[in-house]
Amino acid sequence: MSHFEIRAKECLARIGVFKTRHGDLRTPLLMPVIHPGKSAISPTELIEEFGFQMFITNSYIIKSHDRFKKKALQEGVHGLLGVDVPIMTDSGTFQMYFHQLPEEEIDPLEIIEFQKQIGSDVGTILDVFSDPKVGKAQVEQDMRKSLERAKISVDKKGEMYLAGTVQGGIYSDLREESAREMAKLDFDVYPIGGVVPLMERYRYADIVRATLAAKKHLPPDRPVHLFGCGHPMFFAQAALLGCDLFDSAGYAKFAEDGRYMLNTGTYHLKSLRELPCECPVCSRTTAEGLNSMKKRDREDLLMRHNLYVSIAEIRRVRQAIMDGKLLELAAARARGHPNLLEALHVFLDHYDIIEEASPIGAASSIFYTGTETTKHPELRRFQKRVIRRYKYRSTDLLVLVPDLGGRPYFDSYPDLIRAVRKTKAEDVILAFVTPFGIVPWELEHVYPAQQCIFPSALDVDAINTGLSRVSRFLQSIRFEKAVWLCKDTPMNSIREKLSAFASIEIMEKTSDVEAAILAHINERANWKLRKIRALFKYQWDIDDINLDGARVVLSKSTGKIRYISMDDDIVFTLVPLTGLMAPTFKGGKLLLEHGISTVYRVIMDDDAVPFVEQGKSALSKFVKAAHPDLRAGEEVLIMDSSDRLIGVGRANLNGNEMLAFSRGVAVSTRHSK
Amino acid sequence: MSHFEIRAKECLARIGVFKTRHGDLRTPLLMPVIHPGKSAISPTELIEEFGFQMFITNSYIIKSHDRFKKKALQEGVHGLLGVDVPIMTDSGTFQMYFHQLPEEEIDPLEIIEFQKQIGSDVGTILDVFSDPKVGKAQVEQDMRKSLERAKISVDKKGEMYLAGTVQGGIYSDLREESAREMAKLDFDVYPIGGVVPLMERYRYADIVRATLAAKKHLPPDRPVHLFGCGHPMFFAQAALLGCDLFDSAGYAKFAEDGRYMLNTGTYHLKSLRELPCECPVCSRTTAEGLNSMKKRDREDLLMRHNLYVSIAEIRRVRQAIMDGKLLELAAARARGHPNLLEALHVFLDHYDIIEEASPIGAASSIFYTGTETTKHPELRRFQKRVIRRYKYRSTDLLVLVPDLGGRPYFDSYPDLIRAVRKTKAEDVILAFVTPFGIVPWELEHVYPAQQCIFPSALDVDAINTGLSRVSRFLQSIRFEKAVWLCKDTPMNSIREKLSAFASIEIMEKTSDVEAAILAHINERANWKLRKIRALFKYQWDIDDINLDGARVVLSKSTGKIRYISMDDDIVFTLVPLTGLMAPTFKGGKLLLEHGISTVYRVIMDDDAVPFVEQGKSALSKFVKAAHPDLRAGEEVLIMDSSDRLIGVGRANLNGNEMLAFSRGVAVSTRHSK
Repeated sequence: MSHFEIRAKECLARIGVFKTRHGDLRTPLLMPVIHPGKSAISPTELIEEFGFQMFITNSYIIKSHDRFKKKALQEGVHGLLGVDVPIMTDSGTFQMYFHQLPEEEIDPLEIIEFQKQIGSDVGTILDVFSDPKVGKAQVEQDMRKSLERAKISVDKKGEMYLAGTVQGGIYSDLREESAREMAKLDFDVYPIGGVVPLMERYRYADIVRATLAAKKHLPPDRPVHLFGCGHPMFFAQAALLGCDLFDSAGYAKFAEDGRYMLNTGTYHLKSLRELPCECPVCSRTTAEGLNSMKKRDREDLLMRHNLYVSIAEIRRVRQAIMDGKLLELAAARARGHPNLLEALHVFLDHYDIIEEASPIGAASSIFYTGTETTKHPELRRFQKRVIRRYKYRSTDLLVLVPDLGGRPYFDSYPDLIRAVRKTKAEDVILAFVTPFGIVPWELEHVYPAQQCIFPSALDVDAINTGLSRVSRFLQSIRFEKAVWLCKDTPMNSIREKLSAFASIEIMEKTSDVEAAILAHINERANWKLRKIRALFKYQWDIDDINLDGARVVLSKSTGKIRYISMDDDIVFTLVPLTGLMAPTFKGGKLLLEHGISTVYRVIMDDDAVPFVEQGKSALSKFVKAAHPDLRAGEEVLIMDSSDRLIGVGRANLNGNEMLAFSRGVAVSTRHSK
Repeated sequence: MSHFEIRAKECLARIGVFKTRHGDLRTPLLMPVIHPGKSAISPTELIEEFGFQMFITNSYIIKSHDRFKKKALQEGVHGLLGVDVPIMTDSGTFQMYFHQLPEEEIDPLEIIEFQKQIGSDVGTILDVFSDPKVGKAQVEQDMRKSLERAKISVDKKGEMYLAGTVQGGIYSDLREESAREMAKLDFDVYPIGGVVPLMERYRYADIVRATLAAKKHLPPDRPVHLFGCGHPMFFAQAALLGCDLFDSAGYAKFAEDGRYMLNTGTYHLKSLRELPCECPVCSRTTAEGLNSMKKRDREDLLMRHNLYVSIAEIRRVRQAIMDGKLLELAAARARGHPNLLEALHVFLDHYDIIEEASPIGAASSIFYTGTETTKHPELRRFQKRVIRRYKYRSTDLLVLVPDLGGRPYFDSYPDLIRAVRKTKAEDVILAFVTPFGIVPWELEHVYPAQQCIFPSALDVDAINTGLSRVSRFLQSIRFEKAVWLCKDTPMNSIREKLSAFASIEIMEKTSDVEAAILAHINERANWKLRKIRALFKYQWDIDDINLDGARVVLSKSTGKIRYISMDDDIVFTLVPLTGLMAPTFKGGKLLLEHGISTVYRVIMDDDAVPFVEQGKSALSKFVKAAHPDLRAGEEVLIMDSSDRLIGVGRANLNGNEMLAFSRGVAVSTRHSK
């Protein structure tokens, strides 16, 4: 049984709600590590002044100090720390590694029992931490031992949530094995363990590989904790990987060493003449002031600074996920160290796992931030769908025009768009050539084609990406003749290289291209229906939908399609955010009649039917069947168990997640019977 | 007479000290725009709570409201605002444009006189603000009119500092003409005017072009004010352009509209669920809290947030300049909007003006942040110098080995470096092939070759940059035979393309390359002297310095050269920061004997001689002659007016700046007679 639900997603990142006995928590979330005896800033102040919602403390330290132990056993760990918020406890794994303690120092089951006794909200198993230097054989042995302990520990967890740590070092196959086996056990949180030494050595690419290897196999409905990642420079990228929980001991350790944390890296306070930060500490003192203080006062302020910066970065990450801007935030952070930039590329090279997790459509535009944007999963997915689904039997004339950067495309090429509207797809296809690939005119308003902002000067990687995607498009479509309109833009440079794929006639003047298009009119075309057919194909892979008698209504202000009605009933409306269509209930019936793929049908348990029929959302726990190819963000049909339409709505989760989650909304119902 | 001196530099950016009647100011500096009557946050609080040091207010508004005017005339503008810090006044130029006031509304000389009467620290001329839409002819006419007014105004300034605004819109030739003419007049501050509408439309590339066109001709010893640039997302890039003063009215205007400023862009507060900032406001309230407040309270907090963020970004810019990290900060900021990224590329394409301003050597490493790093001025300059100055008559064997990323290079190729140490340059040259070009083994410790950190995966632009620089190197050097050591790194991919420039033998094994090197030993070589000769050539363009009897002492811990002595006197020490040599006074004499170029001799007025001879720094105001090719950061000889050596030291300024400045240090004296 999961205690976690998802509210928003981007790549593998998610805004979640984690339910505990001491309250609900919004994730991603950062837990300060609290020493049970000597917390320099009181837990109460950490909650009230800094806004922390949860802590992590060490059950092994509590257990091995009599005065902590006694109080914890009497008043619980909450009494010991003097707060009433959720508390996670660690088991001593890191202490065993760090202090090289003998094996008999901590008993794996005893420490679970102790964590239960002191009322921990989330206990942790005693796993084995492998030093990155020991070599694969030893790491494998440690990982197996951790697994054995996990198996005996999970049965003992009782009412306490238990965190089962994935190990396997820098070896993806071991991480995969560990995650696959751990996933079979009913843990409530899955930490990724053993990353502290990698963090310290800036080995971010290794952390990315290890985390993704684990994520592939972990159940999506459990929060993932990147154990020991407390530096704000990595929060954005770690959240992108699907990490939900973070803990920071660094805020205090760094302060002791005179180190000043920023979300761009670490400074030695001594090296600073100015305080490059807006936090309350840095806004009210100076570098000189801090450096001339007594060590103790300086340490206290430095610790506060480190905390303000860390928690603000978590807020920034959350806001970015809600805006679909986390990838851009991670790209900005990647400028803090070349190893972060490299890690971001390693992450983006895992297209399949990212694509599966990424929702269709986001709230914001996509900004070009550097060559990493050429790998943006939404841009790649758009192009793959265009190549797979924008297919006509054949076309006489393919017109390629370079993207001039302005949006909508109509502003760049009003005459050409007006001309192509008079033609049928069999006669003329107009396609914009962009650095992220081909945008067929019919799909110009679809996300992210319209929301993508590139600089007007492009680097070679961006141009090459455009070239390879356009080449693939040319190979996917049959045409009699192709023309290219020359414009003074970087994308114009790919023209020559395309000649390997097709013979393309060059035209210098827009008016010549317009004439070429007009020369291909065979019979009067209905451009609105043509556009809608292309959308049906792109969105639901539906061919030749019958829209006889449909009325297509345009927006008076933008000229874009607003809705489609039949017999005076609206059947589809265009969602401005995604450029896709949302059916009404009647539209849903039409889709069914046209045999829409099961990918877009979510089958509900009959218990849920009355709720959906009242217009309430379709909850995950009632989803009986959902297709693994269904992505979050798609417009779907909600069906009862006998495949009868009960509603239509937008998927909040992908197919696999709908089946995995026992909490939260699977489909936000737009219309029901 | 200038009131400005420079303390640190990076690209065109500088840390300066601006001296006024109300105190010295450190630049870059941000002045909040204060309305004389209704400052929502009191000027005193802006100083004490936020740390602002100077304000700007509007003399036209004061003059046109009787109660402000009366008080200002009686108590001065400082009395009116109730503070004792420097105050700049604007003249009404923007109001004339914005409210389309008739020409007779403000008299250009009257407003100068008024600013003097109210005791402004820095007054501003009444120039003509051109809307970007009016077309070049009108902009030219406006610019000429501004020039006429500047000429009549400057004579009237009296004791008040006067700001003479450069106009010319988006037209570089007009900006150049305006700056050239304005530079002839003795203004104390040079604002760049007319950029507000460009800022509002995110036309950063146009601002870069206009500012650089002006900077080319403005005297380096006067602060430049980017008038109307108050958004923290542009501060880093504007400072890179050489802007020293900023003003912000935006903090209040944005707050009125519910807009939340960040150094990465602007949010509408309503769209926020989380406050993505660490400032005192955002650390102590929530998005929900702010949004549910009364408008007035929300506006007040939003204004405070905007101020905290703006002043912190200024501190961040200052610290970055001191660390030589401003270009990287601007690169990170450029991820906030593609137009900023484009503008950064436009900036970097102005290599000559940037190179002239850039000091040799910086305190920090250079991080690869994206394709803009391929244009990094320090990396380009290093390669240009290598190609110009690393020349041997000929070499038998050129060994090219790809950079493996580790530093020092010795760690990657200990055997090859040990082997090449046994050879003479005529026999074997060993060169590392990096994404920023060639690093000859002898120069491996020179900045920035050793301090440059690239990710291990490289984008095509970085590889192509490496290719074109290596090609140029191959064309600059004569060799009998070249070998290439194959390694599995991205730089290995350029090997094939190099075959157009030379026939290169491929070797797969390091041991084969080592054998090839060892086969070329003709006579016993002294590698320390070889390395030192290469440094003399690279650093001062000196050939064949006679070092008979010199003893070269290595560091025991790093194995690097520490110093050179002759007859038990140290003559040169190696500066770890730059990898270059600093002469002692005796070393300076040796350089003179070897006919060091006049580029590296700074001629002082005789008044300064006694001071320099006592070891004091050589001040700008006493510099009689300095070469325009001299760069800040170079190790130079300090000479009296009869070309006698009086000291040696490191240049703080470049040659032109030494002549222009009447304040501050020209050369930090290391040793004197």
